[in-house]
Amino acid sequence: MGKVIAGITLSADGFGAGPDQSLDNPLGVGGRGLHGWFYPTKTFQSMIGKSGGTEGADNDFGARGLAGFGAYIMGRNMFAPMRGPWPDPAWNGWWGENPPYHAPTFVLTHHPRADLPMQGGTTFHFETGGIHAALDRAQTAAKGKDVRISGGVSTMRQYLEAGLIDEIHLAYSPVFLGKGESLLAGLDLPALGFAVTERVLTENAMHVVLTRTV
Amino acid sequence: MGKVIAGITLSADGFGAGPDQSLDNPLGVGGRGLHGWFYPTKTFQSMIGKSGGTEGADNDFGARGLAGFGAYIMGRNMFAPMRGPWPDPAWNGWWGENPPYHAPTFVLTHHPRADLPMQGGTTFHFETGGIHAALDRAQTAAKGKDVRISGGVSTMRQYLEAGLIDEIHLAYSPVFLGKGESLLAGLDLPALGFAVTERVLTENAMHVVLTRTV
Repeated sequence: MGKVIAGITLSADGFGAGPDQSLDNPLGVGGRGLHGWFYPTKTFQSMIGKSGGTEGADNDFGARGLAGFGAYIMGRNMFAPMRGPWPDPAWNGWWGENPPYHAPTFVLTHHPRADLPMQGGTTFHFETGGIHAALDRAQTAAKGKDVRISGGVSTMRQYLEAGLIDEIHLAYSPVFLGKGESLLAGLDLPALGFAVTERVLTENAMHVVLTRTV
Repeated sequence: MGKVIAGITLSADGFGAGPDQSLDNPLGVGGRGLHGWFYPTKTFQSMIGKSGGTEGADNDFGARGLAGFGAYIMGRNMFAPMRGPWPDPAWNGWWGENPPYHAPTFVLTHHPRADLPMQGGTTFHFETGGIHAALDRAQTAAKGKDVRISGGVSTMRQYLEAGLIDEIHLAYSPVFLGKGESLLAGLDLPALGFAVTERVLTENAMHVVLTRTV
């Protein structure tokens, strides 16, 4: 069975998203500033259909988050800005017709919905059974490859607290949101068994990888 | 009148000190790891009487925290590991006979104590009247120069909340303490009027300077 790997960008004050997510602010108010390290990279530029972009550590970390995974898991709020039952016409995610996952992607939700196949190999599956059920399905679908917990903050906190994440990449940006969704408030990563196994500071971000050793 | 400038090193999870401060752990359990960026610098090496050490941005930020200030303010727990009334024989600080401040240094405490002149121009004054009284005395003593809020976490939070800090340098180290004293939990720096005015990432730390603009 593959590993369960998570990754998220945080502000210097610890928020993975600002408050008041909406169609205009997928990462909440101020959240766009979080990814200053990622936007210039070749990986991101390629995601939006452009050529060029930077190489180096920022690009490597961005690419690692999107390559080699057999399945992805994300929370409802990472998939969609609206809450409650699914609207009609349907919301098909932020990523257009060809999302960057290219693998089965399980969306945690309280509201059932039929599978949603997209171009490029991504199929969104809507899982109403909670984080353990989603991980079971994802690991089966991944056929031995690693599973990626993509976000957002609430989803990642649930998997961390349940001891289900083997490795997590945190990219700290030198920005302050002031309020929003805190990844680590009340969570003690060392007590959860995590130790820092990689640290790379670039001009744009402090990248830290923590691995669970117990 | 000079500015009021603060600075502190934080773990990636936001702690300025670990739990359970003691004589052996001035920065609490695990706190020693916070200053990995500072120990190798010429500024720190010089503080402990050694020659050599690194130059560059880490050294520059370290030096800025200890040069040109007319007075310093610190909390009791930054000055001493014990709590309550002052012991006999007296505790004279962590820094030996010649502390690195070389200026009047006001220690916030609930327990009166006579002024404590040290070598090299540092005199510790023990202020029982609270943060405003300490700042008044420090600004008078500073004779127009800047006043430095040295720490620790609780002192800095009080001055931030009171809107009395003009500029704060935060050095983020890629370490996780898991628990301890959080500088920013429940504090919203943008709402307090701070904006990022400098950001420098070195191999060892993410340095951010925030300036209060309102």
